[in-house]
Amino acid sequence: MIASLRELLVSFADQIETWSDTPTMAFTHIQPAEPTTIGYRLAQYGQDLLIDFEELTRVRAAVRGKGFKGAVGTSASYKHLLEGRSLTPAEFEARIMAAIGLEAFPVATQTYTRKQDWLIAAAIGSLASSLYKFAFDLRVLQTPPIGEWSEPFGSAQVGSSAMPFKRNPVNAEKVDSLGRLIGRLIGVLWDNASHSILERTLDDSANRREVFPVLFLGIDEMLRVSRRLISGLKIDRAAVASTLERYGTFAAIERLLMELVKMGASRQDMHQRLRDHSMAAWNAIARGADNPLVHDLSHDPDIVAYLPTERVAALLDGADYVGDAPERARALARAIRLQLAQGV
Amino acid sequence: MIASLRELLVSFADQIETWSDTPTMAFTHIQPAEPTTIGYRLAQYGQDLLIDFEELTRVRAAVRGKGFKGAVGTSASYKHLLEGRSLTPAEFEARIMAAIGLEAFPVATQTYTRKQDWLIAAAIGSLASSLYKFAFDLRVLQTPPIGEWSEPFGSAQVGSSAMPFKRNPVNAEKVDSLGRLIGRLIGVLWDNASHSILERTLDDSANRREVFPVLFLGIDEMLRVSRRLISGLKIDRAAVASTLERYGTFAAIERLLMELVKMGASRQDMHQRLRDHSMAAWNAIARGADNPLVHDLSHDPDIVAYLPTERVAALLDGADYVGDAPERARALARAIRLQLAQGV
Amino acid sequence: MIASLRELLVSFADQIETWSDTPTMAFTHIQPAEPTTIGYRLAQYGQDLLIDFEELTRVRAAVRGKGFKGAVGTSASYKHLLEGRSLTPAEFEARIMAAIGLEAFPVATQTYTRKQDWLIAAAIGSLASSLYKFAFDLRVLQTPPIGEWSEPFGSAQVGSSAMPFKRNPVNAEKVDSLGRLIGRLIGVLWDNASHSILERTLDDSANRREVFPVLFLGIDEMLRVSRRLISGLKIDRAAVASTLERYGTFAAIERLLMELVKMGASRQDMHQRLRDHSMAAWNAIARGADNPLVHDLSHDPDIVAYLPTERVAALLDGADYVGDAPERARALARAIRLQLAQGV
Amino acid sequence: MIASLRELLVSFADQIETWSDTPTMAFTHIQPAEPTTIGYRLAQYGQDLLIDFEELTRVRAAVRGKGFKGAVGTSASYKHLLEGRSLTPAEFEARIMAAIGLEAFPVATQTYTRKQDWLIAAAIGSLASSLYKFAFDLRVLQTPPIGEWSEPFGSAQVGSSAMPFKRNPVNAEKVDSLGRLIGRLIGVLWDNASHSILERTLDDSANRREVFPVLFLGIDEMLRVSRRLISGLKIDRAAVASTLERYGTFAAIERLLMELVKMGASRQDMHQRLRDHSMAAWNAIARGADNPLVHDLSHDPDIVAYLPTERVAALLDGADYVGDAPERARALARAIRLQLAQGV
Repeated sequence: MIASLRELLVSFADQIETWSDTPTMAFTHIQPAEPTTIGYRLAQYGQDLLIDFEELTRVRAAVRGKGFKGAVGTSASYKHLLEGRSLTPAEFEARIMAAIGLEAFPVATQTYTRKQDWLIAAAIGSLASSLYKFAFDLRVLQTPPIGEWSEPFGSAQVGSSAMPFKRNPVNAEKVDSLGRLIGRLIGVLWDNASHSILERTLDDSANRREVFPVLFLGIDEMLRVSRRLISGLKIDRAAVASTLERYGTFAAIERLLMELVKMGASRQDMHQRLRDHSMAAWNAIARGADNPLVHDLSHDPDIVAYLPTERVAALLDGADYVGDAPERARALARAIRLQLAQGV
Repeated sequence: MIASLRELLVSFADQIETWSDTPTMAFTHIQPAEPTTIGYRLAQYGQDLLIDFEELTRVRAAVRGKGFKGAVGTSASYKHLLEGRSLTPAEFEARIMAAIGLEAFPVATQTYTRKQDWLIAAAIGSLASSLYKFAFDLRVLQTPPIGEWSEPFGSAQVGSSAMPFKRNPVNAEKVDSLGRLIGRLIGVLWDNASHSILERTLDDSANRREVFPVLFLGIDEMLRVSRRLISGLKIDRAAVASTLERYGTFAAIERLLMELVKMGASRQDMHQRLRDHSMAAWNAIARGADNPLVHDLSHDPDIVAYLPTERVAALLDGADYVGDAPERARALARAIRLQLAQGV
Repeated sequence: MIASLRELLVSFADQIETWSDTPTMAFTHIQPAEPTTIGYRLAQYGQDLLIDFEELTRVRAAVRGKGFKGAVGTSASYKHLLEGRSLTPAEFEARIMAAIGLEAFPVATQTYTRKQDWLIAAAIGSLASSLYKFAFDLRVLQTPPIGEWSEPFGSAQVGSSAMPFKRNPVNAEKVDSLGRLIGRLIGVLWDNASHSILERTLDDSANRREVFPVLFLGIDEMLRVSRRLISGLKIDRAAVASTLERYGTFAAIERLLMELVKMGASRQDMHQRLRDHSMAAWNAIARGADNPLVHDLSHDPDIVAYLPTERVAALLDGADYVGDAPERARALARAIRLQLAQGV
Repeated sequence: MIASLRELLVSFADQIETWSDTPTMAFTHIQPAEPTTIGYRLAQYGQDLLIDFEELTRVRAAVRGKGFKGAVGTSASYKHLLEGRSLTPAEFEARIMAAIGLEAFPVATQTYTRKQDWLIAAAIGSLASSLYKFAFDLRVLQTPPIGEWSEPFGSAQVGSSAMPFKRNPVNAEKVDSLGRLIGRLIGVLWDNASHSILERTLDDSANRREVFPVLFLGIDEMLRVSRRLISGLKIDRAAVASTLERYGTFAAIERLLMELVKMGASRQDMHQRLRDHSMAAWNAIARGADNPLVHDLSHDPDIVAYLPTERVAALLDGADYVGDAPERARALARAIRLQLAQGV
């Protein structure tokens, strides 16, 4: 699982760098908000997965066994067997565990504490959550009215027979389906840890045989499919640019307002005027027209009285209004590569 | 929460040390198994809570804020505002966060990643699980037919009016009731992390107002009550000894067998003979009689032919068959104190 | 809760009838699939809510009390008190419960069976699930690139200050946020029912004080908000028609193929030809062009050799390819009204 | 599943009748409370299972299919195919479904509503909860210090090798282990119903292949094992009587007090006196002595001044203080048989 996650992170780092500068509309409430870059959006998943990588690596390294402590964890029979030898049960246990290459819990009952199962589950659950979100976002962006991203499709692969061009995000849907399963199953391991009584009850046994394979096989499949999704991710530049063109200028109005005021215009007057233009443009778009906002604002006499037409248009360029998203995206990609290189 | 957990751990360390050597029957499958010590049993909870302490301390130290990055995390407006100054948005953010004393996530959207909420929830859930188990074990040991442990009771506190002596473990029951609530509620934060779409949807807002207070107030109450339970824990030495007397000798038969074989007896013959005595003694106990096993075995001519009566009796002393439980219990108490002292 | 659900169902029935015939693109995999009608889509929610109504009504009517049976459900003290009177404890209980207007469980312990809590929870959870889906679908349809539905907005209500026209579906998001909470919380009542021991343990008490109010207040708020969402639902007819125009013709190709074959064309040849036109048209749309499919097909000489241009265009009218969705939608609305009228 | 549940219910009815009159101590808070009868305790499980039977039978009978409605549920292609025939798509569907013997949902999308999956899951979850509780109670009663009930054991079956007589409740533990799994897994079907978008997304597919088999195989195994547990249930009459003897008299003190007052004694004086005797007796028991309460009270001069010694002893007979538990238990067994006979 961790090896697969490493490969996935490399693919994310690659894509983050490839797309670090490409502007795209960000969505909040599934509504166009302000521009960001594709690489910066991908960096969110990358950051989440990097956190998961740290969690899983740490949890993996901390896994301990029960050790050799007998039926209730007291080493009573070992102590008796070792009587007369210069070897305590703890030393005896340490030797065997060293040979196995696994640390032992200092105290244990008939089993190691089932809390460990929960900690493993919580980390796997966290990874499942990251992949769920990535796959879900992809499914939203793949809906044709947005149509910006899509999963890779083989040339031989067809949609439905009636609609050969149809591209259903069946791989992303599978990731989400399995993620949902894992998001509930991990609770069983919380239950087991909580409900074991005194020095152990066997009420964890039957369900662990089901839960552990499903968790591990499920997350492996999620990782495998996710890697295909990210490494073969299709991005339709034209669709991305089209959404940005349609909605991005609105976000840049804030910048125009700041400049107009700086040039001496009345904040209150300009706020109202920009608002009126915005509403008109929005309604035009809703009717299917092209976004008239840049033209309208850069030809409004009351506005060009303060800023030349070209400057107004430049200030309204949403593609240019992405802050330091490119730098932050690239820095995150470097952080991924650095962490993977450290072999942690 | 962490401060309360520290206090709770100190109380556990105290009790572990107090009871490190006191033998008691361990139960697996809620069946008497082999002897252990009370301190060693307490050390299991102590070890679990110490793991929780590490988890919570680490998660707490790693909490990061969104920082100052604007509506979709790109710092676009900050970049515009800072234009012309020798200060990047990242530097600007770093200064403010340093003043606040909180690190910022390198990348963020409209919010910090909701994965952080899940990691906090998983750690709180882990603590809730530990307390759940402790309280549940206490409730089992407090049932009068076992009657070994009980929660502290004020002198003014009465059971039901009809049975003034009745001692219901209402505090331990409360811990379990709240633990169960937390064990389910944390799933909401997994859902929030997974279902947030693109640069954030607001579908986490209404439930977080409910979930976070309940998680934090709930775990605080669990810690507060658990501290009272452990610091005022009543242990009925006579009941503990009585259970041990009744069941402990059976566990020590293994040791007797080893010794008999060492003295030249046939393993097969002795195994059958010991088994017959065991079954007879068990049936006697089930009929309410005292455990006849030590007497029967130490007076069986075929057994005393190999080992003197006193030696047989000594080998059957369950109270002496606790392995290195006392040492391991004390070591765990020291580990708790050490870790708390390190101020981590 | 049931009264609010009745009102909600009436609003759904109204809207189903209003929109029963209006064609719209149906989405599977969040991809345009085939046409349906708005009313038929609404009928899906209506049918789900009607099932919930039946469940809740049935569960509500079946709610029973513990009755009057004393500390462990045996009526021992009542029997003693009633000794000498011609009244059994069961008759005594029946009289009081009749006065209260609540049936009693025939057998009970210190409490009524906690299974009842689970059955109530499962029905509330079912309703929460229906409302979750409706609100989520609305949020998807409200994303401006689709822009077909939106929640009602007051004229005074503004989006963000920078984007006054922005319409965030905050009410639908709230419904989903609370639904998610309920979807996890109900598990606590499963736990309580399962973990209560013998004639009752008190480990349900503390969490029920939290869970029941949240379940009932939460679902009430979900119902209240959902009613506003459906009764004030904004449907942008132009956007609906535009999506249908863009994607609906593809779905109707199946019908054209059937007709061509009926007129003597080769199925294999025509299948290939239609497929080629489809792919070309799809690519044109993805580039932002209007859908050329109707024009291309109705002017292809090999096709008009079998069917006149107008007939080809008519067969490709997706708006006409909605099967019996209108009838089924109206029938469902009638079923809602009938069921509500029956006062069940 | 329903056939197995029927058999299980018959076994419960048999045992309820067998043990309807046998007094036993009831436990609240896992503390001895008042007497009940074994049959009445079993009737609690029986009543829960009967409710489950009704739920499952009802849900099973209500299962509907999607029917034949095409890709998005509108029957568009069927309507076209049936054009010119005197058969509507709805009639066409009705004919096929009648042949299949399954009703169809009046409205559907690409699939039937996933709410149906949740309703099935909730009913299976309810049954799992009942079996969980029964198995857990059995495990508590099987702990040797109580030792009243135990699962059946084959003569060849041995406990651990060191303790051949040891009887671990591994079958009851398996029931609880699987029950816990089901109690979490059902949540996946709530998720599927809630998160399916518009006319269906495929994000339910992968997990349903896992969840449904586990739910159905899991509950079948739980039923199979539970039937063995109840039909072969071992009850140790001596242990049951011993617990009752030790704790039952305390519960009957209430009755004695009522009689003393009726005979003219001061309620306040007697309350104090009885309380003192109770405390003394309780402490004696805790020290391992036999319960002295009956003797002490029936020889207290201030008490026998009002009631003769024999009458005092009779009033303190806990075995006689079981109210109408026997009648209610038998009535429940009859209700089970009646309901099963009705073939519902």
